[in-house]
Amino acid sequence: VAKRVKGFRFASTHAGIKRDEQPDLGLIVAEAPATAAAVFTRNRVVAAPVRLSRTTLRRNQGKVSAVVVNSGNANACTGAAGLADARLMAALTAEELGVNKRNVLVASTGVIGERLPMEAIELGIEEVARRPLVGGFDGFADSILTTDAGRKVAARKVDVGGQRVTLLGCTKGAGMIAPNMATTLSFVMTDARVGRAALDRSLHGSVTRTYNAITVDGDTSTNDMVLVLASGAAGNRALSSKDQRLFDRALEDLLDELAHKLMHGGEGVHHVVAVEVTGAKSERAAQRIARAVANSPLVKTAIAGGDPNWGRVISAAGNAGVPLNPDRLDLWFDNVQLVASGERVADSAAEKRAAGVMKRPNYALRLDLNAGIARGRYLACDLSHEYVTINADYRT
Amino acid sequence: VAKRVKGFRFASTHAGIKRDEQPDLGLIVAEAPATAAAVFTRNRVVAAPVRLSRTTLRRNQGKVSAVVVNSGNANACTGAAGLADARLMAALTAEELGVNKRNVLVASTGVIGERLPMEAIELGIEEVARRPLVGGFDGFADSILTTDAGRKVAARKVDVGGQRVTLLGCTKGAGMIAPNMATTLSFVMTDARVGRAALDRSLHGSVTRTYNAITVDGDTSTNDMVLVLASGAAGNRALSSKDQRLFDRALEDLLDELAHKLMHGGEGVHHVVAVEVTGAKSERAAQRIARAVANSPLVKTAIAGGDPNWGRVISAAGNAGVPLNPDRLDLWFDNVQLVASGERVADSAAEKRAAGVMKRPNYALRLDLNAGIARGRYLACDLSHEYVTINADYRT
Repeated sequence: VAKRVKGFRFASTHAGIKRDEQPDLGLIVAEAPATAAAVFTRNRVVAAPVRLSRTTLRRNQGKVSAVVVNSGNANACTGAAGLADARLMAALTAEELGVNKRNVLVASTGVIGERLPMEAIELGIEEVARRPLVGGFDGFADSILTTDAGRKVAARKVDVGGQRVTLLGCTKGAGMIAPNMATTLSFVMTDARVGRAALDRSLHGSVTRTYNAITVDGDTSTNDMVLVLASGAAGNRALSSKDQRLFDRALEDLLDELAHKLMHGGEGVHHVVAVEVTGAKSERAAQRIARAVANSPLVKTAIAGGDPNWGRVISAAGNAGVPLNPDRLDLWFDNVQLVASGERVADSAAEKRAAGVMKRPNYALRLDLNAGIARGRYLACDLSHEYVTINADYRT
Repeated sequence: VAKRVKGFRFASTHAGIKRDEQPDLGLIVAEAPATAAAVFTRNRVVAAPVRLSRTTLRRNQGKVSAVVVNSGNANACTGAAGLADARLMAALTAEELGVNKRNVLVASTGVIGERLPMEAIELGIEEVARRPLVGGFDGFADSILTTDAGRKVAARKVDVGGQRVTLLGCTKGAGMIAPNMATTLSFVMTDARVGRAALDRSLHGSVTRTYNAITVDGDTSTNDMVLVLASGAAGNRALSSKDQRLFDRALEDLLDELAHKLMHGGEGVHHVVAVEVTGAKSERAAQRIARAVANSPLVKTAIAGGDPNWGRVISAAGNAGVPLNPDRLDLWFDNVQLVASGERVADSAAEKRAAGVMKRPNYALRLDLNAGIARGRYLACDLSHEYVTINADYRT
């Protein structure tokens, strides 16, 4: 993938927040204030950096000069002192870079309920601000990781407004897989020139179908944040509506790749399963049913065990709180049909083929409601022994 | 516990639905039509016996002469043929007993998606109807079990309307613990004379705080049913409002005992944890937060691991979709406070004491929102390796 995108610089260091020698402080610098759009966690318990960045973006009309990120400590459940720490991170970064602190965002991820080691962070900010290319994009992508198995990056190029523009993104943490590690961060930088409202619409649409349509264990954390920054350095003309659609598609595609990497990177995850619901009366209904299936522990343990247990899928769909006619349901495991009109149609040979499908690292559970034309999709994964081991035995 | 309740007879047999020699067909006979109230599953995929019994109770104004129950096969996802089978079970029972088939309810529990073996069931119904005392209440309580470790019964006596009345109940299945086994059945018989509307209110109130406030994995099955039958054979006077409250409390208390037994009887369950939310603005808000905590896989793996991971509890509470002020949250593990005003107050000694609390088979996570006076409670359990083993390795 590309490692650069015009208008941005990246840096990272080991400030000493994490115990190992891994990078734990990262910096994105926009050479001129970039246009920003963001989606934050829906959790009501919101970490200090999220509170601060949400307010900052509202006040500065989405103009961002820098983003400072630390891993190893979430700065969540840290009260007024934690909020002051986040503000200080922004102020120190602004001062070092000579930019307005109102244009600096802060993100944190790691353990909950502990104060940040501000002395170490201050020294780290000085270092990354003064040597703004150290580590580059890969180093930055590494600096946001916590329990992740490895770096998660993706890039897209697309021709819009008379120019080829780049989108470059990185992400961390299969969210709630990581115990007490708060949680999903995703940063996308593009050199496209895009209006703030269009960027905002584009991001929200994409996130609904990607980052907000994945589930490891149904929780959203205190620190989740997806941020997109557009420098405009590609010098493209204003985007036509066709250009905008191309850009939207590239962004959604990029976020989908990052979401898949995030799921596959989760500890204990061996299968990423697309729960595809079709024939719904509305997209919302389809999404809710797909989500109920993807979140069902019985479905997820069946995925772990490779058991084509269609009864659990049907029952989980019935649990979504959405009206459906059980006598119309059709269900496939990839292209193997097990249920037609609400009844089992599979013989044991078909069930064996479905069990074969379930050995694949990626496959689809396709549920047709036969009630309309809307569709929805959610990504699910397995609930495995490793999940329990990681999460039950953590800290003890 | 009591084994009899005036106005009812019980019988059971091994009809041959289950492979082992355990009883799999049970019968409740009311000597005269009893007053009935029921709560059925909220799942949209509803098994044939639930469809039938729901309609029957609506049409006959809650008068029940008999209930026929089979285990080993849920008669779910069986289409029109399954509904005809359920109707035939009611008709055969009515014919054998010489009662109106409109006053006969049917319940089934077991595997999904297979037709009932109707010949075996027909012979079984003949046998239990002709020898209406075989096995008695214990035999009936056994005949409804599927993967349960053992019989789950409870009884209460209470003085109302000038008489001592009995409530006798049994239940089966930690619901969704049992893979593909559909699912929770509960039957309560009382000799009290209670009006239908009062019985209905009493049951719905109790179920909200007991059976509908427990969670193993958040799913409700296709076959869930809680039924209460009142024979009136105790001959009490009409209940005063004080009597009614006593009766309501006895019923709720009985259902709470059965719900606890149901949870503890679940395979892989070592801890039943009351998530108690206080200081909420409404009971509904308190219940939703308690439910979100009880359903969180991260909280449940922490319960399994005995890890006093307060951050997960707070984060799960924030995920309930209910407004709350994180800076006001107080959290105790039984009587050990770990969080005050949203921040950690526990030192390592307190965390050790909390870890000690978590070794108990029953304890409470007490979360005070400090925002009002309403409260709610949900029962949670551990998400253990055994849960994954049972549910991932089933059938394969």
